[in-house]
Amino acid sequence: MKKLEGIFAPIPTPFQHEEIAFDKLARNMDFWLDSKLSGIVVMGSNGEFVSLSPEEKRKLINNVCDLANGSNKTIIAGTGCESTKETIELTKYASEAGVVAALVLSPNYYKRSMTDSLIKNFYIEVADASPIPIILYNMPANSSINLSAKIVIELSRHPNIIGLKDSSGNIVQIAEIIHNTGKDFSVFAGSASFLFPSLVVGAKGGTLALANVLPNECVAIQELVDIGDYNEAKELQFRLLDINNAVTSRWGVAGLKAAMEIQGLYGGEPRKPLLPLGEKDRV
Amino acid sequence: MKKLEGIFAPIPTPFQHEEIAFDKLARNMDFWLDSKLSGIVVMGSNGEFVSLSPEEKRKLINNVCDLANGSNKTIIAGTGCESTKETIELTKYASEAGVVAALVLSPNYYKRSMTDSLIKNFYIEVADASPIPIILYNMPANSSINLSAKIVIELSRHPNIIGLKDSSGNIVQIAEIIHNTGKDFSVFAGSASFLFPSLVVGAKGGTLALANVLPNECVAIQELVDIGDYNEAKELQFRLLDINNAVTSRWGVAGLKAAMEIQGLYGGEPRKPLLPLGEKDRV
Amino acid sequence: MKKLEGIFAPIPTPFQHEEIAFDKLARNMDFWLDSKLSGIVVMGSNGEFVSLSPEEKRKLINNVCDLANGSNKTIIAGTGCESTKETIELTKYASEAGVVAALVLSPNYYKRSMTDSLIKNFYIEVADASPIPIILYNMPANSSINLSAKIVIELSRHPNIIGLKDSSGNIVQIAEIIHNTGKDFSVFAGSASFLFPSLVVGAKGGTLALANVLPNECVAIQELVDIGDYNEAKELQFRLLDINNAVTSRWGVAGLKAAMEIQGLYGGEPRKPLLPLGEKDRV
Amino acid sequence: MKKLEGIFAPIPTPFQHEEIAFDKLARNMDFWLDSKLSGIVVMGSNGEFVSLSPEEKRKLINNVCDLANGSNKTIIAGTGCESTKETIELTKYASEAGVVAALVLSPNYYKRSMTDSLIKNFYIEVADASPIPIILYNMPANSSINLSAKIVIELSRHPNIIGLKDSSGNIVQIAEIIHNTGKDFSVFAGSASFLFPSLVVGAKGGTLALANVLPNECVAIQELVDIGDYNEAKELQFRLLDINNAVTSRWGVAGLKAAMEIQGLYGGEPRKPLLPLGEKDRV
Repeated sequence: MKKLEGIFAPIPTPFQHEEIAFDKLARNMDFWLDSKLSGIVVMGSNGEFVSLSPEEKRKLINNVCDLANGSNKTIIAGTGCESTKETIELTKYASEAGVVAALVLSPNYYKRSMTDSLIKNFYIEVADASPIPIILYNMPANSSINLSAKIVIELSRHPNIIGLKDSSGNIVQIAEIIHNTGKDFSVFAGSASFLFPSLVVGAKGGTLALANVLPNECVAIQELVDIGDYNEAKELQFRLLDINNAVTSRWGVAGLKAAMEIQGLYGGEPRKPLLPLGEKDRV
Repeated sequence: MKKLEGIFAPIPTPFQHEEIAFDKLARNMDFWLDSKLSGIVVMGSNGEFVSLSPEEKRKLINNVCDLANGSNKTIIAGTGCESTKETIELTKYASEAGVVAALVLSPNYYKRSMTDSLIKNFYIEVADASPIPIILYNMPANSSINLSAKIVIELSRHPNIIGLKDSSGNIVQIAEIIHNTGKDFSVFAGSASFLFPSLVVGAKGGTLALANVLPNECVAIQELVDIGDYNEAKELQFRLLDINNAVTSRWGVAGLKAAMEIQGLYGGEPRKPLLPLGEKDRV
Repeated sequence: MKKLEGIFAPIPTPFQHEEIAFDKLARNMDFWLDSKLSGIVVMGSNGEFVSLSPEEKRKLINNVCDLANGSNKTIIAGTGCESTKETIELTKYASEAGVVAALVLSPNYYKRSMTDSLIKNFYIEVADASPIPIILYNMPANSSINLSAKIVIELSRHPNIIGLKDSSGNIVQIAEIIHNTGKDFSVFAGSASFLFPSLVVGAKGGTLALANVLPNECVAIQELVDIGDYNEAKELQFRLLDINNAVTSRWGVAGLKAAMEIQGLYGGEPRKPLLPLGEKDRV
Repeated sequence: MKKLEGIFAPIPTPFQHEEIAFDKLARNMDFWLDSKLSGIVVMGSNGEFVSLSPEEKRKLINNVCDLANGSNKTIIAGTGCESTKETIELTKYASEAGVVAALVLSPNYYKRSMTDSLIKNFYIEVADASPIPIILYNMPANSSINLSAKIVIELSRHPNIIGLKDSSGNIVQIAEIIHNTGKDFSVFAGSASFLFPSLVVGAKGGTLALANVLPNECVAIQELVDIGDYNEAKELQFRLLDINNAVTSRWGVAGLKAAMEIQGLYGGEPRKPLLPLGEKDRV
């Protein structure tokens, strides 16, 4: 397969009256397909995948694959579920729909049972059964579980596990993983707020909420690092840091959707229980 | 409705070859229906509800209601999902199937968005839409979110919110809630390990993993408190504390299922990613 | 020695213009010595011991012992320091001054080094060297370290370790410790907010900030439990819960000192960096 | 004053038979004074400052200042204590002894009282009273308190607060602080494990346990970044990451002291309760 690298947008799922608005999705996709993005992640955390029914998940995957058909964008789908069974079923479905790789969050409800050996066993069974490569997804702010450097390094040896999206922001962990995994294992920064330092220690790209709104600016950081212009990259990182603070890192999915509206895209309201910005407590 | 009190068993879901084994469920139900339990909770945390598909959840609810039909047991179903929409739909289904009250875990994936106002809004919308009463479910060890005394006290004023299962074990919080809610609001201890002190400060009963295995012993603690025999109740609590440590609090769902086997019931393996006891790291 | 039981007041250190006000201390002591308290704890957390110099600590111990001389009150002193050496030296000093037992907080700055074996080793060395008995002090809200049931049970076998003040409020842990230690090992509740449930599972008393302000009311709960009047004890616990929330559990040392003033005692300002109530953020 | 930048060694305090071994200190100082280090930090976390008496702290400051006299090394002393009063007194003493700047950890025992306004008030009072400039010290792994970007940025405006040692490793926070403080405010990485990414986002240097053992290698990373050789700097960072994991980040003060011995310096045992490597649980 094409080597996995570059900037990906983990797209939000557009809702209207609490239902997926596929027409709005198509409009937004035009924007992303015209950008310099390497690809799209459907059903990451910003896609409110936990609030979608199995049927909706399948429809959404199909839709995104259809819309991206013929483009040069790589489509990744988030397929992690609490059970191994459902994760494998959804990953197989995604594969048939044309998804190139599956981003798999670890199960996390039974936190005290989530030992290293359980987590490794889960990923190995999914990777063994999946027709498409697996990308590990570390998202401790939501899952309360950290995929340690040790686990990731061990799992990186599986031939069907090709990368990691790390949203922890723990730069020491990210550096350790990069230092101890092979050249073909792709580590992605999980937020624009630490894209630049991640690239500097060897990350292959990023999967960034902010890339939904400012895709080319996110891509520019990587281009600047690639040509060795670290000072300019740092300055651009600082600018994006301000914007990121103002929207996604502070207000979550609702903040991202509000920023989409400002950018001229369709944002709309999150599915409940998430509340739109106006109805939220502003701390 | 019948006042909610007494000891409930949050039953595990029996699996065989990764599928729900309804015949095994029927056998286990005979044991619980013959016991002194006040009722059954289907699809609590020990029921692995996060690993069940929407269809399986509906089938399971139907099955338990059918099996309990004609008995004197109250059936409660866990119906909390990440989205308000799915929670309401499942609660309505449960109502039609004959479930008496719904135990609703708060959404918890988007932890940083789970402000007090969001959580209150979620429960109010669910309670407004539900044909059956709602029991709040506080399970911070799994959800990483605590329903504070303040939130619970405010929500207790809703006419369709009738109780709380508190698995935090925070006895100060439990006492505060009991002290500041009405007589008809039922607080249940969420584990046998703190049943006795909870009853002593005014809890109306318990929803206890251990009640699956030792239902009558759990009921006996409440009977002893009711007749004022605190010393005997304390001694029984101490004995159950030892057993609880040996099984559920240490080994989770897998530990409970192993204990079921010892008791002559069907335990079986948890659905993956959960692992049976033998394959687990023993710390 | 006299068996350790009953209600103790962990007294605040009175300051005036940032210096210890020994005349104010004498006035406050009159109030406590006239009460039904079993004793006094000097230099507990409410005594701001971490803000006192070694000389001030010695003076304060001497002063309290002198003031209590001839009374029926047991004097306990907090002597835990970050180093084993300083802890032993201060404990020996306290012994010579007339202190009956030492309340020893575990060292806690090097959190990642504070393994179970280090903590056990610390307490054993202190207990071996101390001329007076040691009471373990579990205060995770301040130290970020929990003395687990396992550690406490093991340490309870040391002949010079005679009890535990547990401020965690974890009633399961408290019950486990009581169930697994000998009759002579005294467990004390560390806050009035969980005094009643602790007594019900077998605690021998409490060391309670609130006992500084309402000593006889705190003693009354234990008297009611002793005569088996659990309902009255529960009602009194509920009343003290409200007051405790209003003062110490919400506002810390500054709240306690404000409550002392209301009671007609000398409160004064905490030593900085702690701020008096009026200058605090009120959440 | 000389602009604060470069690599500093936060030196361990040498003990022999539980007493400070000043002759061993002199021997070690020769090594550091001959290195490319910018300076020395006496009584940082690795200096076991919490285990030193006030007299020992003064002696140690004097000794280090005397030994460094005539060298080109900048001497910084850790002077944070739990009380504002003691912190100011020790800082004044350090100033008279010849210390150039004071590294001040925030008070942390009364965690629930440590609001942003309290912490700011503490630092402002210390900075107002101190004859020498103050460096903020963020060490959440030990103090359980994080100095947020917001607090640090506000405090950076005080004319006598000139920098920050950040040991959190939170690269987003470090970048935010650098982006929002003036050119004269010096941010230092608090560990060799994230020195390179910190420098890349604009840190002025590092205060690194590893710099005690490998001072010139740590300096080399900064030199490589200064000349724009990011690839070489990254490779050196990776090598130091491995060594850092093997010693200080895993084994704390005891690990550092063992590594000192390997390097031919005096390590010795930590003061108790800290245990030397051999007597520790090896996880």
